[in-house]
Amino acid sequence: MKRKIRMGMVGGGPGAFIGEVHRMAARLDGEIELVSGVFGRDPEKSRQCASDLYLDPTRGYADYQTMIAKELSLPENERIDFVAVCTPNLYHFTVAKAFLEAGFHVLCEKPVAMSSAEAVELDSLVKKNGRLFCLMHNYTGFPMIRQARQLIADGVLGTIRKINVEYSLGWLAAPNAGKQAAWRVDPKQAGISGCMADIGTHAQNLIEFVSGLKITAVSADLATFVEGRSLDDDGSVLLRFNNPVARGVIFASEVATGEENNFILKIYGDKAALEWHQQTPEDLILRSNDAPIQILRRGWPGTGSAAAAFSRLPAGHPEGFLEGFANMYKAFAKAIRDKQPGDYPSTADGIAEMHFLEAIVANSRGTEKWTKVPQ
Amino acid sequence: MKRKIRMGMVGGGPGAFIGEVHRMAARLDGEIELVSGVFGRDPEKSRQCASDLYLDPTRGYADYQTMIAKELSLPENERIDFVAVCTPNLYHFTVAKAFLEAGFHVLCEKPVAMSSAEAVELDSLVKKNGRLFCLMHNYTGFPMIRQARQLIADGVLGTIRKINVEYSLGWLAAPNAGKQAAWRVDPKQAGISGCMADIGTHAQNLIEFVSGLKITAVSADLATFVEGRSLDDDGSVLLRFNNPVARGVIFASEVATGEENNFILKIYGDKAALEWHQQTPEDLILRSNDAPIQILRRGWPGTGSAAAAFSRLPAGHPEGFLEGFANMYKAFAKAIRDKQPGDYPSTADGIAEMHFLEAIVANSRGTEKWTKVPQ
Amino acid sequence: MKRKIRMGMVGGGPGAFIGEVHRMAARLDGEIELVSGVFGRDPEKSRQCASDLYLDPTRGYADYQTMIAKELSLPENERIDFVAVCTPNLYHFTVAKAFLEAGFHVLCEKPVAMSSAEAVELDSLVKKNGRLFCLMHNYTGFPMIRQARQLIADGVLGTIRKINVEYSLGWLAAPNAGKQAAWRVDPKQAGISGCMADIGTHAQNLIEFVSGLKITAVSADLATFVEGRSLDDDGSVLLRFNNPVARGVIFASEVATGEENNFILKIYGDKAALEWHQQTPEDLILRSNDAPIQILRRGWPGTGSAAAAFSRLPAGHPEGFLEGFANMYKAFAKAIRDKQPGDYPSTADGIAEMHFLEAIVANSRGTEKWTKVPQ
Amino acid sequence: MKRKIRMGMVGGGPGAFIGEVHRMAARLDGEIELVSGVFGRDPEKSRQCASDLYLDPTRGYADYQTMIAKELSLPENERIDFVAVCTPNLYHFTVAKAFLEAGFHVLCEKPVAMSSAEAVELDSLVKKNGRLFCLMHNYTGFPMIRQARQLIADGVLGTIRKINVEYSLGWLAAPNAGKQAAWRVDPKQAGISGCMADIGTHAQNLIEFVSGLKITAVSADLATFVEGRSLDDDGSVLLRFNNPVARGVIFASEVATGEENNFILKIYGDKAALEWHQQTPEDLILRSNDAPIQILRRGWPGTGSAAAAFSRLPAGHPEGFLEGFANMYKAFAKAIRDKQPGDYPSTADGIAEMHFLEAIVANSRGTEKWTKVPQ
Repeated sequence: MKRKIRMGMVGGGPGAFIGEVHRMAARLDGEIELVSGVFGRDPEKSRQCASDLYLDPTRGYADYQTMIAKELSLPENERIDFVAVCTPNLYHFTVAKAFLEAGFHVLCEKPVAMSSAEAVELDSLVKKNGRLFCLMHNYTGFPMIRQARQLIADGVLGTIRKINVEYSLGWLAAPNAGKQAAWRVDPKQAGISGCMADIGTHAQNLIEFVSGLKITAVSADLATFVEGRSLDDDGSVLLRFNNPVARGVIFASEVATGEENNFILKIYGDKAALEWHQQTPEDLILRSNDAPIQILRRGWPGTGSAAAAFSRLPAGHPEGFLEGFANMYKAFAKAIRDKQPGDYPSTADGIAEMHFLEAIVANSRGTEKWTKVPQ
Repeated sequence: MKRKIRMGMVGGGPGAFIGEVHRMAARLDGEIELVSGVFGRDPEKSRQCASDLYLDPTRGYADYQTMIAKELSLPENERIDFVAVCTPNLYHFTVAKAFLEAGFHVLCEKPVAMSSAEAVELDSLVKKNGRLFCLMHNYTGFPMIRQARQLIADGVLGTIRKINVEYSLGWLAAPNAGKQAAWRVDPKQAGISGCMADIGTHAQNLIEFVSGLKITAVSADLATFVEGRSLDDDGSVLLRFNNPVARGVIFASEVATGEENNFILKIYGDKAALEWHQQTPEDLILRSNDAPIQILRRGWPGTGSAAAAFSRLPAGHPEGFLEGFANMYKAFAKAIRDKQPGDYPSTADGIAEMHFLEAIVANSRGTEKWTKVPQ
Repeated sequence: MKRKIRMGMVGGGPGAFIGEVHRMAARLDGEIELVSGVFGRDPEKSRQCASDLYLDPTRGYADYQTMIAKELSLPENERIDFVAVCTPNLYHFTVAKAFLEAGFHVLCEKPVAMSSAEAVELDSLVKKNGRLFCLMHNYTGFPMIRQARQLIADGVLGTIRKINVEYSLGWLAAPNAGKQAAWRVDPKQAGISGCMADIGTHAQNLIEFVSGLKITAVSADLATFVEGRSLDDDGSVLLRFNNPVARGVIFASEVATGEENNFILKIYGDKAALEWHQQTPEDLILRSNDAPIQILRRGWPGTGSAAAAFSRLPAGHPEGFLEGFANMYKAFAKAIRDKQPGDYPSTADGIAEMHFLEAIVANSRGTEKWTKVPQ
Repeated sequence: MKRKIRMGMVGGGPGAFIGEVHRMAARLDGEIELVSGVFGRDPEKSRQCASDLYLDPTRGYADYQTMIAKELSLPENERIDFVAVCTPNLYHFTVAKAFLEAGFHVLCEKPVAMSSAEAVELDSLVKKNGRLFCLMHNYTGFPMIRQARQLIADGVLGTIRKINVEYSLGWLAAPNAGKQAAWRVDPKQAGISGCMADIGTHAQNLIEFVSGLKITAVSADLATFVEGRSLDDDGSVLLRFNNPVARGVIFASEVATGEENNFILKIYGDKAALEWHQQTPEDLILRSNDAPIQILRRGWPGTGSAAAAFSRLPAGHPEGFLEGFANMYKAFAKAIRDKQPGDYPSTADGIAEMHFLEAIVANSRGTEKWTKVPQ
């Protein structure tokens, strides 16, 4: 029998939203097998969770150190190939580093670390020890995002002039938004930023991924609307890029009452423009001043190879969030089999997101108009 | 270790669209394990396909009779619990019957058989031998379809007056539409109808599932637009119901140039009305003459328990076709564990769809205005 | 000073919806001047209404016979050029005939008459006496409807195969829907049909106008949902055409709870397909099996001369119902100046709509499958 | 005969877009009569244009001074009641001032002047001499904008937190965009700003009109994308308000390739949120964290009196840009009849828009983060 790639997890115990998303995404194509994990700090609960997930209960560990030791003690044909790190931000760097050093590949939730310094250290480690690292910016896995990137790379938009990104959620509009919310606005677990670390980094990453540009300067207005919170729950940022012509705006909010997961990307070039809405992810709207509006659709003529490679169903059979997430796992599994990095965000993107976060936090607290983002 | 439910397949070899959909759907929740199947008539190809699917190659069989015999010869803790029948229509009845008689549960693609007589026989068999049977009408697995059914059952729409259903695809607009298309318009493999068997039955089934009404009479105009085809590739049907007030229309087409999978359901009652589009399946539009339009969304307040039970992600994280499909597997897996039928279409629905098909084909060929649908 | 075209009205007194629409439409381009009318049967009320409309009160008449006599007695440079007939259906034929015979041009609301016999008589009269006649099918005045007609005439859709039209309103869902509703379901004032005469004729007319096809046979199911009504308030019709390949469906309803004025036209050819929604009339969706969806927009590149001739504002500055209506007046004013008929529906279309109505009413009451529509 | 209100125009000669819009808007309700104007600087051309508009050619003047003198020399029952100023920005102040001083009411295009000093002077004049002044911010005339304002005034949104406004057009993406474009980017005719004066002021005005808040500080990034232009053709602005909690963003562009007139307003409160798109102006989307999305529609239950007062057609019969514009004329005509100001923007709003423009231009050129907007 052909062997599946073996996966472990740190994080994603009972009640965690994103952990189960990782598992469903990993399962979808049938080539990855979850075999172990740290599903809680209580040994019994972690074992129970492993069992509930149809795993060998002895491979439900109570801490990542034990997990590394035990997995290394298993025969090579049983131990995990890679670990998925799905913890609060605080542990991303530490856990990822430990597994890399133990020789495992790592797929890690964003933001990659608590500081750019940690991100730089991780990047050096990855370059040095040759293990693979995937930074889970799941929105880069959507087929029509890949299509957008391809169109821009092919010059269809001409020179990019303006990038407007909106990312609005309403889930933190009220003070008590549950356990999932609590750690995201706790500086000890989330770091220097709340909303911008949670979703602003998605905006920054997607802009850079799709456009190929780098954000070089920011002017930011971060806000905390709900009393008692220590971190931002909203933020707006003006952007400059390494293409000196281009400008941009990000406005991200987790107190945008009534919004679900309203992530909108609009990119204007001097020849054409693109618009994509995460909540209707199968459409990519292409506009120009010379022709009717075009709606490119996943799976339909006019949509190219980059999207097709990340598509499972015929057009009109809606794919969504899980498939986008699964595409990251698919790409990482391929990288593991190929023994070389694939086309997904990695530690370089982790450095960029931490520099961006540090720059907007500093700018928002200060009085200068623009703050440079280190390149 | 907890044991997963073990699944076999008949059909779904290389190149089959729906077979891979079944596998992805079955994988999604991690509680079903595909272990064997007939993936082609050539023994070597079936073994190879099994291997490609990470199965034991010896459990890739070349015909269903062999599969039944071999599976029965395995220890009980290895053999399949149920089989998924994903073949062309021609084999649905024969294969399902054989597995049922051998003591296996069966999940079967629609339409259930080639005739109402076969459907009735299957229904009797299921009632007699106590095995479970799920008819894969996947659109009944969409959360917002469950929500629609709940609203109607709760009386929100009042007395139902009009049901308008459109199901349009363009994939058969040209003569040569590939292997997937070929068998669907071949009377030997598809039966008495092409388009209406393929997608008209989805319309009929969804109407009855959501509204709780039964179609009692039809007036139909089936058409074959592409020369050389023996079966309909388009059809329109006027409907009457067991609620004598209600009326309806189905128009289904596989030659609707440019349409992907445009399945739209509109139900009007004397108090309120519902609208659902399969291509944006997360929205359920609720209208009345007294209030603003409401858009109920999967995962959002105002959407109830029936939808929630069939939902995996928070609102705004789009779910789609695969999740709807997976919900059928989830419900069937639960039924197998519970050892009693669950809330999914079964042989009774199979009888209804065959009666519907026979009535519209007869009516379309004849001169009488209305043809009764046996109840 | 250049002279405006002078207009009179019969109908459209206080409280009438469509009368004020006619007036706003006639005013929009500033080339038509309303100067007289019958605005009610009470002489004082008609005078008062004329005064309220900034007219000379003596030109507010109490009946059309008086209006004709008085207008004829005025100097030629004061009397009306044409009359707009905005009464309930009952009077369309009689009033139009009288004004035509008196030498005035006539613009008349649809349906043109109470029977096809009347429509034929009117058509003969128009042909004989050389006066101009415009049948107010206002939806033919929408720019993107003109664009659709042009695309089909240019062969962009290829051979037309299927035409699906939905026209749903909810305003008659409850028994008492006001004065505007009352006459529409009163056989004495509305004729042989309620809903189908009111909106079904819009569907029939728009199909024939846009596609260039003629409906040759129908199979209909008219319904009366609200107790106590003598006429249909809902209807569905299967269609055949003079192009023997084509098929179609109309479903029209005035008891479609929650619908405002939901008029949708979908036309599928063997090369491409069009979709238009009256409630978002600036978009014309063009689909094919070979290319991305195109959304043609009024005023934008890719939209041609036929639409441009009926457009007043730049793209993105929404035009709507009144502009469409005004386009009919604009075309009729031009015809009056040019002294020859223009590109708008006329008595021939009136005959077609009455034949259609008579055929569907007969078919719906009978047992035969198809009823021919006289050509 | 009842007398109509008599209107004159300065600007709006042949080829001018907005002049004809003013005329159509003024005509729509039939209570205003255009009688004179300056339709060009060449006497013969202005006379010819008057004649083409069905006016007495002698009332087509070649300059506003002559117009004032001649109109004053006419009997009171012939001379204009008000003038509409539809010139490039350069003349707004001078012309408006002259007509006010001559005793006429004035309706003036935005922005009100070339500087805040001029705006303040005009405001003083209006207060002193008792003539009426309407600043034509036409988007405040849309029914669903009035509905939005009413909902906020009624407290439905709670405390306003975030206001995001996008106003994107593509018409200036290329260097040569025609005569209409030329003066808008010429500092002599347009003033200190191009894009922001043209459309940014619409954004600023609509924000303040709908929310009731005042913008108190700005941080701006104005850009000129097309070489050779002296003024901005794009701009993004971060906003602070007199409600110290609230934040906002405007991004406006006239080089947003492919956009028609994409003006979007999103306002988030701590209880609910509103969204409005100018291109689909009949919908007002109301969201909260506790209930399904509501789409309020013009003319439909749930939409209140403020919108109803500005509505002419039943729901589902689309109204658009002209009706919104006409609502301003309707309100101004009523004010003239009532001899007191109505509910429309005036000189106070003109001061605010000029302060806003001056603040963003200054901020964009400087290095400080925030620039205060004088109140």
